Amino acid sequence: MPAGKLQLPIALDAMGGDNAPASVIRGAEMALIRHPGLRFLLFGNRFMLEPLLQDVQLVRAASEIIHTEEMIAGDDKPSIAVRRGRNSSMWLAIDSVKSGKSCAIVSAGNTGALMAMSKLILRTLPGISRPAIAALFPTLRGECVMLDLGANVESDENDLCRFAIMGDAFARAVLGLSRPRVGLLNVGSEELKGRNEVKAAHQMLKTINSDLNYHGFIEGNDIAEGAVDVVVTDGFTGNIALKTAEGAARLIRTYLRDAFSSSIIAKSGAVLATGALKAVKEKLDDRKRNGAMFLGLNGIAVKSHGGADAFSFCNAISVAVELVKHNINVKITDEITAYTNPQTPPLSMDAIEGEAD
Amino acid sequence: MPAGKLQLPIALDAMGGDNAPASVIRGAEMALIRHPGLRFLLFGNRFMLEPLLQDVQLVRAASEIIHTEEMIAGDDKPSIAVRRGRNSSMWLAIDSVKSGKSCAIVSAGNTGALMAMSKLILRTLPGISRPAIAALFPTLRGECVMLDLGANVESDENDLCRFAIMGDAFARAVLGLSRPRVGLLNVGSEELKGRNEVKAAHQMLKTINSDLNYHGFIEGNDIAEGAVDVVVTDGFTGNIALKTAEGAARLIRTYLRDAFSSSIIAKSGAVLATGALKAVKEKLDDRKRNGAMFLGLNGIAVKSHGGADAFSFCNAISVAVELVKHNINVKITDEITAYTNPQTPPLSMDAIEGEAD
Repeated sequence: MPAGKLQLPIALDAMGGDNAPASVIRGAEMALIRHPGLRFLLFGNRFMLEPLLQDVQLVRAASEIIHTEEMIAGDDKPSIAVRRGRNSSMWLAIDSVKSGKSCAIVSAGNTGALMAMSKLILRTLPGISRPAIAALFPTLRGECVMLDLGANVESDENDLCRFAIMGDAFARAVLGLSRPRVGLLNVGSEELKGRNEVKAAHQMLKTINSDLNYHGFIEGNDIAEGAVDVVVTDGFTGNIALKTAEGAARLIRTYLRDAFSSSIIAKSGAVLATGALKAVKEKLDDRKRNGAMFLGLNGIAVKSHGGADAFSFCNAISVAVELVKHNINVKITDEITAYTNPQTPPLSMDAIEGEAD
Repeated sequence: MPAGKLQLPIALDAMGGDNAPASVIRGAEMALIRHPGLRFLLFGNRFMLEPLLQDVQLVRAASEIIHTEEMIAGDDKPSIAVRRGRNSSMWLAIDSVKSGKSCAIVSAGNTGALMAMSKLILRTLPGISRPAIAALFPTLRGECVMLDLGANVESDENDLCRFAIMGDAFARAVLGLSRPRVGLLNVGSEELKGRNEVKAAHQMLKTINSDLNYHGFIEGNDIAEGAVDVVVTDGFTGNIALKTAEGAARLIRTYLRDAFSSSIIAKSGAVLATGALKAVKEKLDDRKRNGAMFLGLNGIAVKSHGGADAFSFCNAISVAVELVKHNINVKITDEITAYTNPQTPPLSMDAIEGEAD
């Protein structure tokens, strides 16, 4: 094992995901080329990992294997996984973040188990009771962050406000925006419309005591328009909206594929348009946006898509790297502290007056 | 005014919608060609309607104008519209359904006002406390019905079960299916996942006392897959999911248009693929699926998209015609009665035993 300087050690659940561990090792290789300062703690079965590492010297030189023969299956119930999975690659990987041996954990394993274990091991940040899952969504203007995508099934106005603050910090870190526009997802843009908790969150965000750039209500169709950079919603609505849109995108791709193979003329057109179609495919490539963060935990946990290939997994590692580099949790904690303790500095008189109404 | 036999009189809010009244008159013409037995009651300003009818003899011969100078604007608040709009074209058109002068009302006007007035004038069917908005969604297998799309912002398990029954009746009438598969939208397919009211509705639908073909939970991506024929959800989630998917579809169309005009080669490809692209465009054409029904009211009220053109408005009229022909409200009432009064016939012993567990 090389004794090189420990820069940004990242814990990888080498056994999680449909294509693990090969996709994890190959993804780690791509990530090392992209971010040369990385080091990996690979949690998994050494008898499976060592043969793979033979072919990937770059990863081998930058990694340490922490051997375990246990792993969480994709269909394990989170409650069972938490009770019986304390020697699993997933648990040990998360625990290395808690103990400070790594700066972040990336796993393509069972989402529910990863969330349950992460909450239990890492705990939530001060002032946060519910973590949220945040991920990127393509828009006409580029990309936006959307949260919560399913960490919770119900959220009250306080949760929604915290999601707004966390999403703002995420957009600053991952999208590099200086003042992201934050929108609250609703069924209409008028103040009277929507669920009570959404209307209450709107009133709170309008007068929020921070430099959050609150845009107001948005509707579903505004997301892809790029009306805002951060889309705030509860985990039930967010999960369903995102998956419904993914399904619609898949439907259109199928329509296009069928149409382009329907005749020789159409096929010739598709050949000429190969470059154009490839450009569209690339823009819609979910693999580019792989890596959903569990925001609000006292440690960085990134969930890769279960079916991730190496490129996709590499992008999830990149999300973790950006979040570490940007000290996302320090930023969230500062913002939440300013929000929950408006009397303490740093506070302007304007903000205090804003509080009063 | 011709004294022809009154077959299927349909009330049209001739003043509702961005392109009214021209789109309404031209849409009525297309509908008359499609359904020769129709008659129209045109509610609106005769000084605007009569000149238009000069050019459309077919509609003129099959219509009666009920003159009013009042109309509901697209941005009128529903509460105000209900109080001050009693002489509006919308109100009078709905009222003609209540008084039996017409079998259905079609309007491209203000959705909130149309729903509020329809509830007030028509009232709900026995056993239904909350109406739902139902509309069609394209899938890999054809089309599915989705409800509620925004009539309510919250729905409990009893509402969701009634939506399932109403959606079933709608799919039988409009899609011509004999035993539509009904699915409940959730964030996962496991029994433990989701909101409490969704889990409770799932238990109720599993043992429901009717011939409802309940499929279980579905996720957002299952909608476009065509996993079920009827997608049941609350109006907040349904509205947002539908609009998010519409936004994603628009994003992909924009990507394609930009890509196909990015180079001469791509443009040539697009020319060769014109037929194929047109076929895809047609499949995705929302105008074909125009016409959302307010299900659960004691009368048939169909909402056309506000921006509807003639073709689109004609399709909304067609939805009304199918619902009238299939006696949708009799079917809903029968099913709801069997569901809410399981002791009364027609009931099999199986169903009674099913009730017991």
